[in-house]
Amino acid sequence: MTYCVGVLVAEGLVFAADTRTNAGVDNVSSFRKMTVLERPGERVLVLLSAGNLATTQAVITQLREAAAAPAPEQSTIANAPTMYRVAQLVGDALRAVCDRDRLYVGQAGGDVSASFILGGQIAGEQPRLFQVYSAGNFAEASLETPFVQIGESKYGKPILDRLLRQDLGLSDAAKCVLISYDPTLRSNISVGCPIDILCCRTDALRVDSHARFDDANPYFRAIREQWADGISALFLSLPGADLGQWTLPIQGDFR
Amino acid sequence: MTYCVGVLVAEGLVFAADTRTNAGVDNVSSFRKMTVLERPGERVLVLLSAGNLATTQAVITQLREAAAAPAPEQSTIANAPTMYRVAQLVGDALRAVCDRDRLYVGQAGGDVSASFILGGQIAGEQPRLFQVYSAGNFAEASLETPFVQIGESKYGKPILDRLLRQDLGLSDAAKCVLISYDPTLRSNISVGCPIDILCCRTDALRVDSHARFDDANPYFRAIREQWADGISALFLSLPGADLGQWTLPIQGDFR
Repeated sequence: MTYCVGVLVAEGLVFAADTRTNAGVDNVSSFRKMTVLERPGERVLVLLSAGNLATTQAVITQLREAAAAPAPEQSTIANAPTMYRVAQLVGDALRAVCDRDRLYVGQAGGDVSASFILGGQIAGEQPRLFQVYSAGNFAEASLETPFVQIGESKYGKPILDRLLRQDLGLSDAAKCVLISYDPTLRSNISVGCPIDILCCRTDALRVDSHARFDDANPYFRAIREQWADGISALFLSLPGADLGQWTLPIQGDFR
Repeated sequence: MTYCVGVLVAEGLVFAADTRTNAGVDNVSSFRKMTVLERPGERVLVLLSAGNLATTQAVITQLREAAAAPAPEQSTIANAPTMYRVAQLVGDALRAVCDRDRLYVGQAGGDVSASFILGGQIAGEQPRLFQVYSAGNFAEASLETPFVQIGESKYGKPILDRLLRQDLGLSDAAKCVLISYDPTLRSNISVGCPIDILCCRTDALRVDSHARFDDANPYFRAIREQWADGISALFLSLPGADLGQWTLPIQGDFR
């Protein structure tokens, strides 16, 4: 499985992806799930991928090849004028790959489906963040929900729901994303370190910072430990349930 | 949707269930999802249900009718000698109901499936806790994972994974279960208050305490608020990410 997050705050964008790919318990590998197109001063695009690895690699390869050597008048992610158009191109590539492979992969009992997070900024626009669904359609993150997730999103979602706000600084937003990995790594063994994390500052039009964290990274370790200790201490500090007062009668039952 | 939890600690069992049933956005109702069979001093059984409401009601009704007026030699949940046998009877009833309805419900585009949490104690046994799957088979909670969940379990799971231990007292176990409802209520609008919660103390062989919590309950409100404030304070207290040191080069990308 995979867990990828994209976050949009006023100061910029944060992207994170684990690197674990598995196709069964005895076949666990690490693959890059984060792809960057950077033309400093003009555009910076980040794609995070989840789902069928053959599908996501084919999509990335086709987007990359078209960007490197476009046909005349061809719209590519390197020349598209808006992030919206880039999201369309990602969705179109995803549909084309799935259309090509769906029948054969299905016959083999597999599933071609994949999804993407796309974020970035093109000169003249604000930073934008999209979730591209497996059907190739897509939705944009909003002020109210300034993050998108793909893959094993469920365990990290409560932390993001609770703590992420548009006015968090980029450093705190990155901290929040890293903390959202903690329950995911604990509760789902198929999401694994290292974690790629990357930030783009608004209007910088380039990658601001990029790191790869494994279990031994001092910062990641420190915040995970402090988070775990803090949650335990908080739990103990809350008043216990006063069961002696829980005297609601049980009605309509077997007795 | 539904979120139900059963917990087994050394001091006893805790059960909780929300009461929201929905079959679409404009059809949200409250139904009891917790059923109790109590024969003080001899056995106490608790069933929590999730899934198709017609299925769960039919299963409960059949178990209840058989317990009230068994055929000669009929094994029922009221006379079964072990919790394991009770779990079999629940699974058998579930299979019978699904077999009867599956074709017709499927033709109408519906899904008959349902699942149960079963816990309790029969004189001569320790307290036991089971998860009965939609196929009618079942698994028992263990020392390592002393809880089971059905329905919208994902948002509460990290809290239980992190905080629940066999040696928690019953009052703290109940507090932990209530806290696991907080992210679920926040992140999934289809799980709703009030919440039924019930405790059985080991060897009491009766219900120890039972309460129903809505948003306005002072204890539930207090621990939810203190939890939210504590998490926010904890998050702020952790060191921010030092993005200036995140200088890993980006390799193999489009640029």
